[in-house]
Amino acid sequence: MLESVGYGVNNAEEPLHELSFTRRDPGPKDVQIEILYCGVCHSDLHTVRNEWNNTVFPVVPGHEIIGRVTKVGDQVTKFKVGDMAGVGCLVDSCQRCGSCAEGLEQYCENGWVGTYNGEEMHTGGMTYGGYSNNIVVTEKFVLRVPDKLDPAAAAPLLCAGITTYSPLRHWKIGPGKKVGIVGLGGLGHMGVKLARAMGANVVLFTTSANKREDAMRLGAHEVVVSRDAAQMAQHENSFDFILNTVAAPHNLDAFMVLLKREGTMTLVGAPAEPHPSPQVFNLIMKRRHIAGSLIGGIAETQEMLDFCAEHGIVSDIEMIPIQKINEAYERMLKSDVKYRFVIDMASLPRPQGAASAKSTVS
Amino acid sequence: MLESVGYGVNNAEEPLHELSFTRRDPGPKDVQIEILYCGVCHSDLHTVRNEWNNTVFPVVPGHEIIGRVTKVGDQVTKFKVGDMAGVGCLVDSCQRCGSCAEGLEQYCENGWVGTYNGEEMHTGGMTYGGYSNNIVVTEKFVLRVPDKLDPAAAAPLLCAGITTYSPLRHWKIGPGKKVGIVGLGGLGHMGVKLARAMGANVVLFTTSANKREDAMRLGAHEVVVSRDAAQMAQHENSFDFILNTVAAPHNLDAFMVLLKREGTMTLVGAPAEPHPSPQVFNLIMKRRHIAGSLIGGIAETQEMLDFCAEHGIVSDIEMIPIQKINEAYERMLKSDVKYRFVIDMASLPRPQGAASAKSTVS
Ligand SMILES: [Zn+2]
Ligand SMILES: [Zn+2]
Ligand SMILES: [Zn+2]
Ligand SMILES: [Zn+2]
Repeated sequence: MLESVGYGVNNAEEPLHELSFTRRDPGPKDVQIEILYCGVCHSDLHTVRNEWNNTVFPVVPGHEIIGRVTKVGDQVTKFKVGDMAGVGCLVDSCQRCGSCAEGLEQYCENGWVGTYNGEEMHTGGMTYGGYSNNIVVTEKFVLRVPDKLDPAAAAPLLCAGITTYSPLRHWKIGPGKKVGIVGLGGLGHMGVKLARAMGANVVLFTTSANKREDAMRLGAHEVVVSRDAAQMAQHENSFDFILNTVAAPHNLDAFMVLLKREGTMTLVGAPAEPHPSPQVFNLIMKRRHIAGSLIGGIAETQEMLDFCAEHGIVSDIEMIPIQKINEAYERMLKSDVKYRFVIDMASLPRPQGAASAKSTVS
Repeated sequence: MLESVGYGVNNAEEPLHELSFTRRDPGPKDVQIEILYCGVCHSDLHTVRNEWNNTVFPVVPGHEIIGRVTKVGDQVTKFKVGDMAGVGCLVDSCQRCGSCAEGLEQYCENGWVGTYNGEEMHTGGMTYGGYSNNIVVTEKFVLRVPDKLDPAAAAPLLCAGITTYSPLRHWKIGPGKKVGIVGLGGLGHMGVKLARAMGANVVLFTTSANKREDAMRLGAHEVVVSRDAAQMAQHENSFDFILNTVAAPHNLDAFMVLLKREGTMTLVGAPAEPHPSPQVFNLIMKRRHIAGSLIGGIAETQEMLDFCAEHGIVSDIEMIPIQKINEAYERMLKSDVKYRFVIDMASLPRPQGAASAKSTVS
């Protein structure tokens, strides 16, 4: 077994702390990666605190992983030692269903394996994520990270980036399309950058007028304060597509009426409490759609990384040592980050045998 | 002005009763029709009782109209006296917006004119519907009724038929598609017939097990009692499309989980009170859609009538004299009709001057 050290929790009540654990040794198709950077996603916090009631403890979160390949199995062909590599939200899927065959592993009909808190296919245990010194992942689920991308700022592309890229591609965003992005957080700021790079006319919706300047800098053509009914009314029936990144329950109708005939609003965040029920009338009168979208498949994630390299896109990040992770969670809850925390894994003490770790997964 | 007699109300509290009123004389582009049959739609009841708070009284309802052409204007080219003609929910639209240009008058961006309770474009007054002896409509909004169709049973095609035909066509239903129809009323029974004729595998969802036999007779391949969780579970992730005809508030999630990846559930009824808010999780996990659809355009309505003639499809109806309209409304509220009431307009006393009418629109 491979010895690992990372940050995680043994129950939902304690703060994150250092702990040591083991992963499978790399098999013939596996890539072993020394993790350099890991982005901090809201899902990490939800899982650590068991807010979705599905956490198996101990848990080590993190699914925006960038690192360097340190070992490859005999049958690995796409990676060699020393390559920069990425790992996102998925580390395995059934590979035999229709969705897997189409490269849409995130919709695997037999259930995909999450990078953490997932059922490990090889050992029968659980998967542990990227708040850690290393990881072992089957080649098929490892991404090539183009040299042009700053590796720390590229980490959030693996979840926040692909979660916004995939719907923009699926709904065919490009020149001539008017696209709304709702919310300017980790997801929203990537949505603005990506939609702009795809050639769309981009409008950012925010509740805070003071985000205007930053949104314009990130690529928005226009910023609309969604609480301003008069501003909103000016955009009625005008959007081809709205990407709604806000998971907090809110009034969807305010955005639905901004869609053109046959327009779609796609939700990428699932609220803990339901949104107020959207008015069916707004759907019927213009044949509008509400849809959802989940991260992206492996091939599309690679396409996104290559697209970002070509267009010079990374996340706006604030780098933290792993010792500041609990503080970062509190700040993330207050949206006090522009726009993603990334853990510098150099801050993690290198393992010197399990004895040095403050807590051990039993 | 053209003298008309019909059934309507002067306020939301009174029952429908005979009244006389006037319409515009047919202009050069108009067709005048002697109404033979008119279907009875839930919208008629909502409007008469002002349940949508937008009724202008007096109102004469009815937008499933079949009749015979009695006069045509100089510039009319598609109709001649004696032709069988139909009029549906629309009698005018702006004719200059993008939706009108595409033949999607029901989504006219400047507002279409309803067959009743609409703002008449020529006189400045209101439009009066089909519970009447005659109607004057601009040629463009008059449908040809194929000889093969029984005219009485064809009347409900003009609203119930096109409301279900249009979404089935828009979402490309045909052979190889598994389609659910929710609800077996006026709309649902047309949805079953039309989806079957389009070559789909048709499943009818109903809350009443005793509708099974009838649904099979109408064309369903399978009937699922939506309150039976075990039956429902057998269909998870299997539908390409679900057409939901139930306007009463209900749990949409029970149907959403039956859709395949990228499947759509389209709602054609707007509930008075909102549905329970659908779970965003179900949208995200399979990139599913909720959409709406509104009746259909004039060209598509003609296509639907021709399709029905080709496939021998009409509505299952119960014919009533107009004197039974108030009783029919009460029965409709209890779903006590298989599956659409149609008024035989021969029961309406022919007008002999306004003096003979029991009430006059002032
Ligand atoms: Zn994430
Ligand atoms: Zn699969
Ligand atoms: Zn109707
Ligand atoms: Zn128009």
